[in-house]
Amino acid sequence: MDMAKIEFWYEFASTYSYPAAMRVDEFAKKAGVEVIWRPMLLGPIFFEQGLQDSPFNVYEVKGRYMWRDLERLCAAYKLPFNKPSHFPQNGLKAARLALAGMKEGWGEDFSRAVYRANFVDGLTISDDAVLAEVLDLVGVEPEEAFAAAFTQENKDALRAQTDEAWERGIFGAPSFTVADELFWGHDRMEQAFNWAKGK
Amino acid sequence: MDMAKIEFWYEFASTYSYPAAMRVDEFAKKAGVEVIWRPMLLGPIFFEQGLQDSPFNVYEVKGRYMWRDLERLCAAYKLPFNKPSHFPQNGLKAARLALAGMKEGWGEDFSRAVYRANFVDGLTISDDAVLAEVLDLVGVEPEEAFAAAFTQENKDALRAQTDEAWERGIFGAPSFTVADELFWGHDRMEQAFNWAKGK
Repeated sequence: MDMAKIEFWYEFASTYSYPAAMRVDEFAKKAGVEVIWRPMLLGPIFFEQGLQDSPFNVYEVKGRYMWRDLERLCAAYKLPFNKPSHFPQNGLKAARLALAGMKEGWGEDFSRAVYRANFVDGLTISDDAVLAEVLDLVGVEPEEAFAAAFTQENKDALRAQTDEAWERGIFGAPSFTVADELFWGHDRMEQAFNWAKGK
Repeated sequence: MDMAKIEFWYEFASTYSYPAAMRVDEFAKKAGVEVIWRPMLLGPIFFEQGLQDSPFNVYEVKGRYMWRDLERLCAAYKLPFNKPSHFPQNGLKAARLALAGMKEGWGEDFSRAVYRANFVDGLTISDDAVLAEVLDLVGVEPEEAFAAAFTQENKDALRAQTDEAWERGIFGAPSFTVADELFWGHDRMEQAFNWAKGK
């Protein structure tokens, strides 16, 4: 029998995607489930729902709570966390790079490093110099990575991945899919892995 | 030392308040923490946030997901569940009754029975006849209960409780407070109890 599979859908600006990205491999190892990392863009998905900004900015009382909740969660999981100076950041370039990196084997390390840049180091992840540093950090030659990320084919592939997410009922991040079954939120990661194992 | 206390804020229309209401006592017993049940109204709290309807109706893709998620959660916790024919229901009368009942010792049983009426039996919980049946079921004389619930004092008390919720940063239900610390959602119940115990 093939190894059970789970798709992990994430966006670099998404706050709860940060703990999910840092913890998903540990869950996968424990469960014996393969994780497919699928970067996407939340902007178009929010726009389809009539949102011009993150719901955490649109609903500011909820947004205030989210930052406190995220801080508590990160403390509980011993993940470093510093509230970014601006939110949401533009994750487009980082997502293009991550998608290109998935084919080359460095997409997952790069993704985790982008989350650290955003939610720990307070860097601007839409900035080419920051992204080049992050690439360097994970042992990838920035110039080649940028070239691969900005081909029309890769840009279209990210758009298609985002469209696919929306078509499959994804409305926020992080999300997890096990075939047609959708799980939304870092809070549902454990349940999603149990589902993948058939429990 | 006094027993640790947690306040449980709920609204009868709220979907995730159903599993929270059915499970909160078990958590309290296990944790050795006192629970104070605080019925409130989400309508005014949503209105303050610019929402004229439940976010699960405003954002329909998210709403579709919520029903599936709730079904899965209830199955996992072995709670019966049937999707109500209309959502959200008007929980005003039930909340007035629950608040009056808290003083008389039947508020918690009544609250659980209202949730069952809404999310298991498919009844209309704004209907006086349904509420009278629910009161009967928990051994309360309906006429007296209605009289107590509809005094100006009790109506004002429910309004004040809802205002207090909003002032304390509550934006949805269920919510849990431990002094000034807020936890939102059935998903945070365990964390809230751990917080109350000082862990």
